[in-house]
Amino acid sequence: MAAFDDVRVLAFDTFGTVTDWFTGITTAVSNAAPTVDAAAFTRAWRTRYAPIMGRVEAGALPWRGLDDLQTETLHDVATEFGIVIDDATATRLVRAWRTIPGWPDAVPGLARLRERYTICALSNGSVALLTEMARHNHFGWDFIGGSDLWHHYKPARETYCGLATLMECEPSEVMMVATHQSDLDAARGFGLRTAFIERPDEWGGAPKDDSGSPHNDVHARDLIDLAERLDAP
Amino acid sequence: MAAFDDVRVLAFDTFGTVTDWFTGITTAVSNAAPTVDAAAFTRAWRTRYAPIMGRVEAGALPWRGLDDLQTETLHDVATEFGIVIDDATATRLVRAWRTIPGWPDAVPGLARLRERYTICALSNGSVALLTEMARHNHFGWDFIGGSDLWHHYKPARETYCGLATLMECEPSEVMMVATHQSDLDAARGFGLRTAFIERPDEWGGAPKDDSGSPHNDVHARDLIDLAERLDAP
Repeated sequence: MAAFDDVRVLAFDTFGTVTDWFTGITTAVSNAAPTVDAAAFTRAWRTRYAPIMGRVEAGALPWRGLDDLQTETLHDVATEFGIVIDDATATRLVRAWRTIPGWPDAVPGLARLRERYTICALSNGSVALLTEMARHNHFGWDFIGGSDLWHHYKPARETYCGLATLMECEPSEVMMVATHQSDLDAARGFGLRTAFIERPDEWGGAPKDDSGSPHNDVHARDLIDLAERLDAP
Repeated sequence: MAAFDDVRVLAFDTFGTVTDWFTGITTAVSNAAPTVDAAAFTRAWRTRYAPIMGRVEAGALPWRGLDDLQTETLHDVATEFGIVIDDATATRLVRAWRTIPGWPDAVPGLARLRERYTICALSNGSVALLTEMARHNHFGWDFIGGSDLWHHYKPARETYCGLATLMECEPSEVMMVATHQSDLDAARGFGLRTAFIERPDEWGGAPKDDSGSPHNDVHARDLIDLAERLDAP
């Protein structure tokens, strides 16, 4: 696809785009707290994810790693659901985000895309979290862009442009791949190309807007479809 | 090998330990400057590698990326050899360090070690350089620790301990793997474990001290031997 010949690097959001957090976390919650509605609990936890990172980026909180933020929101959700989670269980649940499963198309799709492009994770997880997730799922990243490299969370400029700098390329040579339009809108604002991936089951059957903005450069059903659209072998 | 059960991460020096810079660079020099003794030129260039990084670490020079330093030393060596290298040729020669070949044991050795350990490059190359080198050679790094992540060069503490921090582990859970004793001595000084790899041909037949310090935790002939000694499958 000639229009994207200048793209050299694909930057992937991970939670939701490459991996199925709903399945992984509901399973972990079911095991850890059998009395609660695991699906509702998982959705409530995930709903608190972006806002607390937003408070860090707004300067209302100092930099703290994702596990630390997830521990705080986990206890908040537990209170909301009327349960108490001990420290060992909290650690286990927070670490469960490291071994959430890839979507079925992730491994074959990434392998095809890697033939043509340098593929990087660009996620709000830490480098260690993303490394463990990749080893667990056999994702073959060329490079892992974790939030602790920059001490910033998406949608901060430092993450998108920081990856472009490390890859020694222009922002326009990087295509952000995500199932969240807000991530893509931020990336486009900093000069990256954008690819929307449909993940209708991201929220485990709860509604998810997969329409995607017409401003995206590519709209794909999944990562295999993305490989087709980007002419990866 | 029970003594190393606490090691979780292997950190690899790349130039010389995993890849054969002498072969790669003499080939590039032969093509670019057919009139010079390519072996002698290559050795002279490589000899200037550590000292100029040392000047950056000593504060005599501000932070500059490896390609920039290599460009400066390339022109110095050209002057020494009585030739002039134009900018396009200099760029080509500096970039030749990105596609130097792996030693024959590198790919199979790394693959075995990766089964048991998280494997990282820990090199004075940039992330982009190391990413290109890995793609060229099909090295399957879990993570690439390039000097531009820290704006420091080995043997600075920031590199060894910086990688341990990103991997969320103690320095003692990281084993540095290198064919240069000075690299291992520094790593050990910061609390890492150490493995020496013999590379008798690193300097293309010129003498190379492969005796290794008795303080090293492991001494291996190559990366396959290292896999044996670390009980990797």
